[in-house]
Amino acid sequence: MRAANHPERDEITLIEVMKALGDPIRVGVVRVLSDGLERGWGELRAPVAKSTLSHHMQVLRAAGVTRTRLEGTRCYVRLRRDDLDERFPGLVDALLAAAGQDEVGSEVGLRPVAAP
Amino acid sequence: MRAANHPERDEITLIEVMKALGDPIRVGVVRVLSDGLERGWGELRAPVAKSTLSHHMQVLRAAGVTRTRLEGTRCYVRLRRDDLDERFPGLVDALLAAAGQDEVGSEVGLRPVAAP
Repeated sequence: MRAANHPERDEITLIEVMKALGDPIRVGVVRVLSDGLERGWGELRAPVAKSTLSHHMQVLRAAGVTRTRLEGTRCYVRLRRDDLDERFPGLVDALLAAAGQDEVGSEVGLRPVAAP
Repeated sequence: MRAANHPERDEITLIEVMKALGDPIRVGVVRVLSDGLERGWGELRAPVAKSTLSHHMQVLRAAGVTRTRLEGTRCYVRLRRDDLDERFPGLVDALLAAAGQDEVGSEVGLRPVAAP
């Protein structure tokens, strides 16, 4: 979970990104994060076990698709949209359009925010 | 290898396409076929065993990325560019640009044509 575990922009590879995005849950996470906001892991809602979601988050991070930040005991995640767009122009746009059209990953969403 | 084994255009799914394109040899085959020409399998040159290449071709076909045609005892293959562009606009373009830039799949090519 350390910052050191993120590939630098130039180290992000097409194949690892394609592999990371070859899963509907991971595509769903990318769709949720596509608004550019950083989210706490606890905010993410997905129809998989917590450990499975954790694995998916790790795959996305290792591929350079997301950046994870640890604050105290909580993990936050955001999409590395700038890095991905710089490395592979148009790829994330095309993926998001296709996923939106076919509703791929729609089972992933955000939990309702608890009242303060 | 029968025509029946190809998904119809509407049956092509984003996830299967992403999975199929999460491999450098398969990306290389797509790059070779990106000129739109149909090629005999024997024309393809890749640094893998014949059986491995055959497996890769099967993955591409099953995902709807390529169309394979059997003529006598020879297999021919072409990219389903129209179907892919229709289903997922911009995706193949972005992939080919990224792969070209990073030289992903450059180890796949065409054999020199034998003199007649």
